[in-house]
Amino acid sequence: MRLAIDVLGGDHAPDVVLNGGLDAMDLLDPSDEIVWVGPQEVIRDFLDERGVRDARISIEHATQNIEMHEQPAKAVRQKADSTIVRMARLGSTKTPPERRADAVMSAGNTGACVSAAIMQMKRLPRVQRPGIAVTIPTFNGPVVLIDAGSNPEPRPTHLWQYGIMADTYARHVLGLRNPRIAQMNIGTEEEKGTDLIKQARDLLKATPGLNYIGYVEGRDVADGVTDVIVTDGFVGNTLLKMAEGLVKTVVSAIAHEILNHDPELALRLEPVVKRLYSKIDYHEHGGAPLLGVNGGFIIAHGSSNRRSIKSAIRMSREFVRSGVNAAIVERLEQVEREMGVVADAEECE
Amino acid sequence: MRLAIDVLGGDHAPDVVLNGGLDAMDLLDPSDEIVWVGPQEVIRDFLDERGVRDARISIEHATQNIEMHEQPAKAVRQKADSTIVRMARLGSTKTPPERRADAVMSAGNTGACVSAAIMQMKRLPRVQRPGIAVTIPTFNGPVVLIDAGSNPEPRPTHLWQYGIMADTYARHVLGLRNPRIAQMNIGTEEEKGTDLIKQARDLLKATPGLNYIGYVEGRDVADGVTDVIVTDGFVGNTLLKMAEGLVKTVVSAIAHEILNHDPELALRLEPVVKRLYSKIDYHEHGGAPLLGVNGGFIIAHGSSNRRSIKSAIRMSREFVRSGVNAAIVERLEQVEREMGVVADAEECE
Repeated sequence: MRLAIDVLGGDHAPDVVLNGGLDAMDLLDPSDEIVWVGPQEVIRDFLDERGVRDARISIEHATQNIEMHEQPAKAVRQKADSTIVRMARLGSTKTPPERRADAVMSAGNTGACVSAAIMQMKRLPRVQRPGIAVTIPTFNGPVVLIDAGSNPEPRPTHLWQYGIMADTYARHVLGLRNPRIAQMNIGTEEEKGTDLIKQARDLLKATPGLNYIGYVEGRDVADGVTDVIVTDGFVGNTLLKMAEGLVKTVVSAIAHEILNHDPELALRLEPVVKRLYSKIDYHEHGGAPLLGVNGGFIIAHGSSNRRSIKSAIRMSREFVRSGVNAAIVERLEQVEREMGVVADAEECE
Repeated sequence: MRLAIDVLGGDHAPDVVLNGGLDAMDLLDPSDEIVWVGPQEVIRDFLDERGVRDARISIEHATQNIEMHEQPAKAVRQKADSTIVRMARLGSTKTPPERRADAVMSAGNTGACVSAAIMQMKRLPRVQRPGIAVTIPTFNGPVVLIDAGSNPEPRPTHLWQYGIMADTYARHVLGLRNPRIAQMNIGTEEEKGTDLIKQARDLLKATPGLNYIGYVEGRDVADGVTDVIVTDGFVGNTLLKMAEGLVKTVVSAIAHEILNHDPELALRLEPVVKRLYSKIDYHEHGGAPLLGVNGGFIIAHGSSNRRSIKSAIRMSREFVRSGVNAAIVERLEQVEREMGVVADAEECE
């Protein structure tokens, strides 16, 4: 596998990216390669300081950074020498095969990542909109949520394709045999929800081989009732961010309360809470793949620490090895054969 | 205050409603009155079994129940003798003043409650859509979220009015001096979010006397950065339900982990966790008012237990005593004077 990594993306870049990346070299095979995308002096200095001589490492010089607050499409168009654009280009067919990356990874501006993915790497055949698939590590097993923020106002066919792609991903990467697919809704009854949701429901229900189980509500997310949740990017993103904040809040409130009343109890509790937290800590669970683009595109959390970067690299490797993209192409082709349609007749964006 | 209570609404009705209601009699003044709305034999038997003779209690006979799964508008139209419709009617101007309820309370079908409120009690002047305001008890103080589920696809003016009404509610009922008003969004930058959100932003920003602070993200909800969160009913409902489920999950997972490794620790932990939980337990915090209807309308959680019902009754009383509805009417009138507009020129629904 050749993996291109954005050195400047993320709140704690370049340090955590470079350190996490170095940590990850142990996970890689002799035939794997890492291409660091960023200012070559910064990267070279980092490697030299640590006396790193690894033939699997190369550098792609890029001078510009796309900041977190920049308007994505504009930044991608204007900053051709940004790490995100150069990284995505490496993952595209514009780069000759002997230098092309099988997967790319960034903890940078998510919107810019998605724009660059679409513009450089292009969508897989039949895919209308790519979607970000976040795997939520619940106590009842992993739940894949799509879309996590790239598509806040989707069409029904987008949601439909998200269900199909996430199903394929759950099978090939998470190893689930017959993943349950559900839509997030504000009630479980058939007539609940918006027209968007009902139209997506009709499409999902009619898809052969898709184990569509209907609606789930916000409270069901962690209850082990479904393996995949399909929702629009606004709800998806808000839910994920709130879950993050809430878990942290509850755990720290318990710790705080205990510390105030029983410091000795707090000491005994520490290892327990640590063990629990690691089960659900998103930092352990790496990045989220952007499903539907031609190549692996792993988006790591903006606040990624060194451990998350290492996890995201591990995930990139699993993504490539799983062959999930080829499986998605085949699946969409099959659905089109069996249902006569798989997308709207719409213009390329 | 005269309060009409739906005896059949909720998962554990009529028991918890009647018991919780009886518990609440201690909270009431000699001049307060409770009207139990439901099958008179059931209510009479309950009171007689307990030897209750309280002149403040009366019964409004109603034979039908609107189930949780029934389509709201249809059920309200067809079941004229349902507890929800009769209860709302008691709160309306159709009932002569000497029998009219100042507030009504139900733990039943939320959609039916909203429909009945609009049809029977009517909206306050200038209000386009009522909205459900849930007060989230965070560790950093209460946060009012509106809309919690009655309006999944609002217009910008609905969100605007929600901001104004929730601000008035926060001042008059929660006693906050200058409540911070924010919109839920998937980013804090100005250009983030849907057109709906941006249009609502322009209206909220331009409203004199409204402390509009911009956007908050899902992860900020419990961080004490805002006092009021304005969002559409889909996002609001999903967030609230997920928060419910998540808090329960995290607390029980910690308890479970501890029990497995250190049963003695679990014993010592129990009072701590109980104390913490009661701070944020929604059961302690009663129901949610439907803002924008002519009269108090408190919607209690469907799974309400006896304690929640008592809390919801307490909240109904606070609502009436605060004079918040008169304040909302005045506020909307003032906004219209100062801005020239406060609503779309739209048909009555």
